[in-house]
Amino acid sequence: METSRTQVAIVGGGVAGLMLSQLLHVEGIDCVILERQTRAYTEARIRAGVLEYGTVELLRRVGVNGRMDRNGLRHEGFALMDDGEAFRIDLHQLAGQDVMVYGQTEITIDLMDACVERGVPIVFEAADVELHDIEGAPWVGYTKDGKAYRIDCDFIAGCDGFHGVSRRTMPDAVAHCIEKVYPFGWLGILADVPPMDHELIYSNHERGFALASQRSATRSRYYIQCEASEKIEDWSDDRIWDELAVRLGDDGRMARGPSIEKSIAPLRSFVCEKMQHGRLFLAGDAAHIVPPTGAKGLNLAASDVAYLADGLIGFYGRGDEAGLAGYTARALDRIWKAERFSWSMTQLTHRFPGMSAFDRKMQKADLNYIRGSEAAQTAIAENYIGLPL
Amino acid sequence: METSRTQVAIVGGGVAGLMLSQLLHVEGIDCVILERQTRAYTEARIRAGVLEYGTVELLRRVGVNGRMDRNGLRHEGFALMDDGEAFRIDLHQLAGQDVMVYGQTEITIDLMDACVERGVPIVFEAADVELHDIEGAPWVGYTKDGKAYRIDCDFIAGCDGFHGVSRRTMPDAVAHCIEKVYPFGWLGILADVPPMDHELIYSNHERGFALASQRSATRSRYYIQCEASEKIEDWSDDRIWDELAVRLGDDGRMARGPSIEKSIAPLRSFVCEKMQHGRLFLAGDAAHIVPPTGAKGLNLAASDVAYLADGLIGFYGRGDEAGLAGYTARALDRIWKAERFSWSMTQLTHRFPGMSAFDRKMQKADLNYIRGSEAAQTAIAENYIGLPL
Repeated sequence: METSRTQVAIVGGGVAGLMLSQLLHVEGIDCVILERQTRAYTEARIRAGVLEYGTVELLRRVGVNGRMDRNGLRHEGFALMDDGEAFRIDLHQLAGQDVMVYGQTEITIDLMDACVERGVPIVFEAADVELHDIEGAPWVGYTKDGKAYRIDCDFIAGCDGFHGVSRRTMPDAVAHCIEKVYPFGWLGILADVPPMDHELIYSNHERGFALASQRSATRSRYYIQCEASEKIEDWSDDRIWDELAVRLGDDGRMARGPSIEKSIAPLRSFVCEKMQHGRLFLAGDAAHIVPPTGAKGLNLAASDVAYLADGLIGFYGRGDEAGLAGYTARALDRIWKAERFSWSMTQLTHRFPGMSAFDRKMQKADLNYIRGSEAAQTAIAENYIGLPL
Repeated sequence: METSRTQVAIVGGGVAGLMLSQLLHVEGIDCVILERQTRAYTEARIRAGVLEYGTVELLRRVGVNGRMDRNGLRHEGFALMDDGEAFRIDLHQLAGQDVMVYGQTEITIDLMDACVERGVPIVFEAADVELHDIEGAPWVGYTKDGKAYRIDCDFIAGCDGFHGVSRRTMPDAVAHCIEKVYPFGWLGILADVPPMDHELIYSNHERGFALASQRSATRSRYYIQCEASEKIEDWSDDRIWDELAVRLGDDGRMARGPSIEKSIAPLRSFVCEKMQHGRLFLAGDAAHIVPPTGAKGLNLAASDVAYLADGLIGFYGRGDEAGLAGYTARALDRIWKAERFSWSMTQLTHRFPGMSAFDRKMQKADLNYIRGSEAAQTAIAENYIGLPL
């Protein structure tokens, strides 16, 4: 077995792991990233695309902002629509900040380029990853091309997503997990056509929720609420576009085109409240999932690793363990608030199976109240641009 | 049958009917109030006690504010408590207004005194009330002391509460009713002891919701969430005080005393969206019920009759029927927003049977977010002091 040593072993080469590596690298802390997939696969994953102000700042802090600042789209607001009537949440005016529309795919490319340039090692196609001695002197074992490797380290950052090995390695993590599964899914379609509007539109329609989103001025991302059990094979591109046109009240602005990608994902709220055990720390999807309605998943991964980096920088720079000891509490406070916002936006905009006439009236009254209240709009806006890190 | 004639026949001598009579009287519009109970009974009913700013203004507009302004208590805030941790919603600072704590019983007395002084006729113990020809030339029939009476009128105001005859007289009203019954009730106790705090305390405790309220500096009103099926006979005063002490985290401030009144009431949200048929108009509890959590029931009755009075004044003063024609839409807009607020305050502060760990986390995250957000606190405050009439 070939052995090596680093300070922080990062399991998972998604945005959480990559961002953490750069936050540590700029402070002179060594790390190694282990990624199960190929670089090409990782870069092609279609994910989120709305960055909070704090996430943008974090990318700037590590100097990985050139392409984002050139190609990202600043959005100063978004629309909430109910039964075809829309009103706008003016993020900029209400909360003093914008969000940035820039695909997770692009961020992943930018961060990987930075790793390569700066000599931060990433091992792609690392198989059979196992975490050992997390309560003592931790090490990570893996195989690549049939050969076994061992990396000894001071800390392990579990950034390997909901299905990763990190959370499963943590003793009694299951007892600290809290979950809600929503009785529907989202069908997403990606297409190289201009977005129907320069901002996002969240629509609550009698046929179900729809979202007009985007990745750039020439790449659209749309979603519709569907049953979680539906099969993507039953949804031709034409059927999806027709359904979107109805739910978004299209008046001809919606450009159609062949799908680059389409898929159905379930909606889930999930938090593992145990985010540390010994020298293993969880960050991002490894510890929590939000329904995508609030665009919070990627941004929570960013705040997690910002907090974790703070803790590690305190440890290595000043021998101060308080940041690491307080990581879980600090992260959970923000995670639960983001879970709350994602849940409330989901409640507000989706048609729930079996919802009563009263439930629907509460949605309409909520939207009607929000439309007329600067305070209520500000509460939405400050969550949407992101609560302070 | 003895017959007479008035412009507006008001069915029901609670706050809605009494307030309407005064709003009409100051404009020179004739009315008669029919009340099923005796004056003593009506004045003794224990009901709400928190007046929105707009309700206070309305009482001043009709000049029935002397005792209220002398004896009412201005409250500039209230406390939200969860698992024993409290924080304050500063109504005055956040929304620029206070609420007035002044018992519905006292308002009823003041309004009845005004009726007597001003010569607005109230018929007490009016039995067998029936509404006739509401689509044409309406009249109200009733009996008193075994004798039959008939009042011809231009309009009928149905202010006779949830169980009254007015809504039942309206054709197909049932088809326009929307209801939610909550899986618990409130046990209330009234006692002549000083309140435990100078402001109200809403407490979400693992044993259920509790509210420390008051009617004056020497009269306390407390509530605890209980099962709707419980019997008041099983709750001795001591048991109630003990339970309140636990749920409100009493540190010795809570003065105990014999109950003047105690009872259990179910919690319900109810709206009849049909508030007019021909010349019959519903107002107050005849058209809607809110759970008491937001202290909105009395205040909604006040805004209903303010709108209805506007319509009647327009009709008699300028021959303008627009106000009457628009009554339902105008009233419902405010009613649904108040229903929303009452529902959301109930969601936030009560323990629901079968609530999941995730549901409870959402309550805590909501409270935690509100505690840290001026916008979220302002949204609560502006609803609590009352949305604009």
